[in-house]
Amino acid sequence: MRYLLILITIITSFSASAQRTGELKFIPADRFTLVGKCEPTHNPYNRIDTNKYKGLPPRVVQLLSHSAGIAISFKTNSNVIAAKWCVSAGKALPNMVPTAQKGLDLYIKNGQKWQFAGIGKVTGICNEEILIGRMDNTEKEFLLYLPLYDQVDKLEIGIAKNADIAANNNPFVKRVLIYGSSIVQGTGASRPGMAYPARLSRATGINFINLGLSGSAKMEPEVADMVAAIDADAYILDCVPNTNPELITERTANFISTIRKRNPDIPIIVMQSLIRENGYWDKVLGTQVRQQNINIQKEILSLLQKGMKNLYLITSENMIGDDHEGTIDGTHPNDLGYDRMIQYITPLISDILNKHNIKNH
Amino acid sequence: MRYLLILITIITSFSASAQRTGELKFIPADRFTLVGKCEPTHNPYNRIDTNKYKGLPPRVVQLLSHSAGIAISFKTNSNVIAAKWCVSAGKALPNMVPTAQKGLDLYIKNGQKWQFAGIGKVTGICNEEILIGRMDNTEKEFLLYLPLYDQVDKLEIGIAKNADIAANNNPFVKRVLIYGSSIVQGTGASRPGMAYPARLSRATGINFINLGLSGSAKMEPEVADMVAAIDADAYILDCVPNTNPELITERTANFISTIRKRNPDIPIIVMQSLIRENGYWDKVLGTQVRQQNINIQKEILSLLQKGMKNLYLITSENMIGDDHEGTIDGTHPNDLGYDRMIQYITPLISDILNKHNIKNH
Repeated sequence: MRYLLILITIITSFSASAQRTGELKFIPADRFTLVGKCEPTHNPYNRIDTNKYKGLPPRVVQLLSHSAGIAISFKTNSNVIAAKWCVSAGKALPNMVPTAQKGLDLYIKNGQKWQFAGIGKVTGICNEEILIGRMDNTEKEFLLYLPLYDQVDKLEIGIAKNADIAANNNPFVKRVLIYGSSIVQGTGASRPGMAYPARLSRATGINFINLGLSGSAKMEPEVADMVAAIDADAYILDCVPNTNPELITERTANFISTIRKRNPDIPIIVMQSLIRENGYWDKVLGTQVRQQNINIQKEILSLLQKGMKNLYLITSENMIGDDHEGTIDGTHPNDLGYDRMIQYITPLISDILNKHNIKNH
Repeated sequence: MRYLLILITIITSFSASAQRTGELKFIPADRFTLVGKCEPTHNPYNRIDTNKYKGLPPRVVQLLSHSAGIAISFKTNSNVIAAKWCVSAGKALPNMVPTAQKGLDLYIKNGQKWQFAGIGKVTGICNEEILIGRMDNTEKEFLLYLPLYDQVDKLEIGIAKNADIAANNNPFVKRVLIYGSSIVQGTGASRPGMAYPARLSRATGINFINLGLSGSAKMEPEVADMVAAIDADAYILDCVPNTNPELITERTANFISTIRKRNPDIPIIVMQSLIRENGYWDKVLGTQVRQQNINIQKEILSLLQKGMKNLYLITSENMIGDDHEGTIDGTHPNDLGYDRMIQYITPLISDILNKHNIKNH
């Protein structure tokens, strides 16, 4: 026992001294493979080059600079992974973990699965952190998820000086674009890799792209044009929570028809809003969410009756469980709620995508 | 449909105007029942009056001022609940939701169960927020959980001017003190009511008391004296994560014997450390946690062999699941990990407490 403790002490001191960021080499992350991008952009960590699209609401433009859903794919034999990155001076959100808002989240391929490895804690505008260290030095495949709620202006990956690093493939096939609210963007997830589009990608091997626009997924006609123009094999619309019953009636048919016009055959999957837990007590809020879900169902049924094909509705009963503990604030799922949501929607979405031959094998 | 929408609009505007905090009356919260306290204190929202105990480490003294695990029990027929509260200027923690660190979390009794109702978002040192509004005005029972990682210096509960409010009973029976690390105090939980001692209380009806000391649950002899002096029907020790293998060997027997001396018959339940997910890759960390768990088991077996009664060990295999997604940062559970932990430990703990007639019926 005593020998083991001495050994641990020696290894710890050695590793700590060998794994300060100052002793590593840093490489710009955009030399590697970018995963989860809506389209190529001038700043590689933005989701959309918004000057390509006319008339977008200012808040939408701002949110599209956030790196939500973007990850870096690389492989290295380094026994330590570090990062330097800069975000904005924007304030901490009251209902988000700073790591999810502005930090990093590292996964490593373990057999056929992506497995969590470590986070990059955010402490200021520019940050320099070891994400994981003291590993063996076999070559491994990595996915580094970027901040959900901020713009990344610089990102470098740090490895041991004697290690090699190279771009890896995009591990996910096809493209399924998820347009939606803060629940898509990831409010309530504890780390960037826990946002539900990222979890769906790892669970299915299909490339789910995060077009979450917190508070601003309101199906404006200009946004419909932008969404329709993004290359995708399927669309998921999870925007009901950001609207109101009247807006749904007013905008849904146009939004879906705009996508359909440019994408004649691909599946469009519409999701009802999950329940708002505070709406159980707040009668006005509860009624409003029920009415939003009734109205979206009416709109989808009407489009189906008019003959639109490959249009699907996912209803939301008990999507986040029945113990009322699945939210961070009454509105946004916490990781428990997201896990229940993933259990519920993954087979439904996979069935639809499979039918359209959108699969990873 | 149109009538319903107009009705909703009217109700919304009416309720919003009727439910600004300026139109409510505010009552100091310490007039009501304090739940989850270690002992009576001068500042009602501290856990311990630390000047009663000699030689406590300074960081332990500071952590004992945090209101972790304390809740206010009251009943009112108000259709709106608000709060004013002040916390310190201490910085946001990188791996915690600000609401959990410095905010409030409100539950309402629904039948036999406590059900989440709303949060108090923290925006500064002194805060004033509506937690839930637009309810019906039947009398309800409330539990308001206080911040997990800060000191509360002032707390007032706001209700409608024409409503009544009164203290309610402590809804939980007996006292089970949980001494432990940040995992007890609640790092990674998304709201104060999601810390695991609070969840255990709501699940069992037994009063689990949060003596989590983030990073500082090191079984010092002076802390052993303090813990042993707190009135309890059972003790749970979940402090292994904050120690190291050598400290466990050095301090466990003394810590448990100190409690046993003052509490000859009551159950003492010791928990192994849950796995550190980053320890799967970081070989030094992985080895250290395994060795901590081996050493605590050896210490408990040795005490049992020496004839100590009513001493129990809960082992930690797969306590937070096997998909590696149950932590916020590799070390602390997120709500998903805490949920799995609750599923795992609740029957084990309940069995032991039942055997000792510590139950809520």
